[in-house]
Amino acid sequence: MPTGQEHTVKAFDQDIGHLRGLISQMGGLAEEAIADAMTALSRGDAELAKQVRSKDKAIDLIEAEVEKLAVRVIALRAPMADDLREVVAALKIAAVIERIGDYAKNIAKRVPSIHTGPDRIEAISILPAMANLASDMVRDVLDAFASRDAEAALEVCRRDRALDDFYNSIFRVLLTFMVENPKTISEVAHLLFVAKNLERIGDHATNVAEMVYFAATGKYLADRDSLEGRA
Amino acid sequence: MPTGQEHTVKAFDQDIGHLRGLISQMGGLAEEAIADAMTALSRGDAELAKQVRSKDKAIDLIEAEVEKLAVRVIALRAPMADDLREVVAALKIAAVIERIGDYAKNIAKRVPSIHTGPDRIEAISILPAMANLASDMVRDVLDAFASRDAEAALEVCRRDRALDDFYNSIFRVLLTFMVENPKTISEVAHLLFVAKNLERIGDHATNVAEMVYFAATGKYLADRDSLEGRA
Repeated sequence: MPTGQEHTVKAFDQDIGHLRGLISQMGGLAEEAIADAMTALSRGDAELAKQVRSKDKAIDLIEAEVEKLAVRVIALRAPMADDLREVVAALKIAAVIERIGDYAKNIAKRVPSIHTGPDRIEAISILPAMANLASDMVRDVLDAFASRDAEAALEVCRRDRALDDFYNSIFRVLLTFMVENPKTISEVAHLLFVAKNLERIGDHATNVAEMVYFAATGKYLADRDSLEGRA
Repeated sequence: MPTGQEHTVKAFDQDIGHLRGLISQMGGLAEEAIADAMTALSRGDAELAKQVRSKDKAIDLIEAEVEKLAVRVIALRAPMADDLREVVAALKIAAVIERIGDYAKNIAKRVPSIHTGPDRIEAISILPAMANLASDMVRDVLDAFASRDAEAALEVCRRDRALDDFYNSIFRVLLTFMVENPKTISEVAHLLFVAKNLERIGDHATNVAEMVYFAATGKYLADRDSLEGRA
């Protein structure tokens, strides 16, 4: 027969397992949303863009479930130290993934404004590579969370710099494109926001990486600005 | 002599009072950050812009304090129903105010990129009115939280539509400005992001309003998209 304490520990482990499962499910949906939004953008596929928007509700629902479960675990199991850090991290990570989903939704929302004529705006072609970088960061940081791997989390933080550089160069390319094709200024302005959304997805993956690092080690990463390094 | 239960209730009320105080302090700092960022932008005051960026750390610190206190209250006092909703709302509202502070910081960061020459970009002049609308929403929703006023929270949600309309018209004005002044495209592109940041501040004030409404009534506001109404 298990003792009362063993029973509590086991129940806590089950709750944590459930929390991890929900987070990984959310992460999968967010990655899919980024990929689908970019496909919709590249193809001018308004129907797919619409699906991204409606699927975002599923992410929101899981976030609400994580919140409910995390609060219940804190109230009922009164976890301490490492365990409490982990539950609070799950709560915060869910909120960040919800935001990542919002950015994907935001990209999808712009599809009809970008494909206003029969011609494909040439400038779109530089964005998918940036989206892949951002999406890989999301996937890798969630893997780092699942395996409590502080080193892998650090590695994601380091990659944010490359994404920022990518963003800065895309920003300049798009401005040049505007100057040279004043008729497309409105469409290209929307692409600027798409690029910015991708850059923000990378920022949020970095935020999650910081939370994973803290949950795994109990130490804060050095001052965020030194990692941010963006203007 | 107070009974044990009275003692717990009183301790809980003190904690909630402390949480409310911290949130209101954060909100004051966020409003100040928006105002200072816009002043820095209008005057091209790089020094003031720098102060906004460094003061943002104070907002982050208070958020961490709210998080610690809220988790402690949930774990130690095991609040139920209304009380639990209030603590969770405080936790989430603090996270949103932190984001509002980030948007103000982001506006401040753009000041040096916008004031690159001796001439003031004329298009800047349309932004302060939009900033006032957004900042008023932040102030009013925090007042609604402090007074648990669900009706005032609803009122803030309704105003988000006006801010979105304002944003859409500024977006068009700035694009026209770009077409007519191709030399300023880079600076005006930064202004597009400033306008977008202000629009996002309004979105976040609306998110807080939804949380205040839920904390005060236990009911969710109707589907967010119907309130969002933005593309």
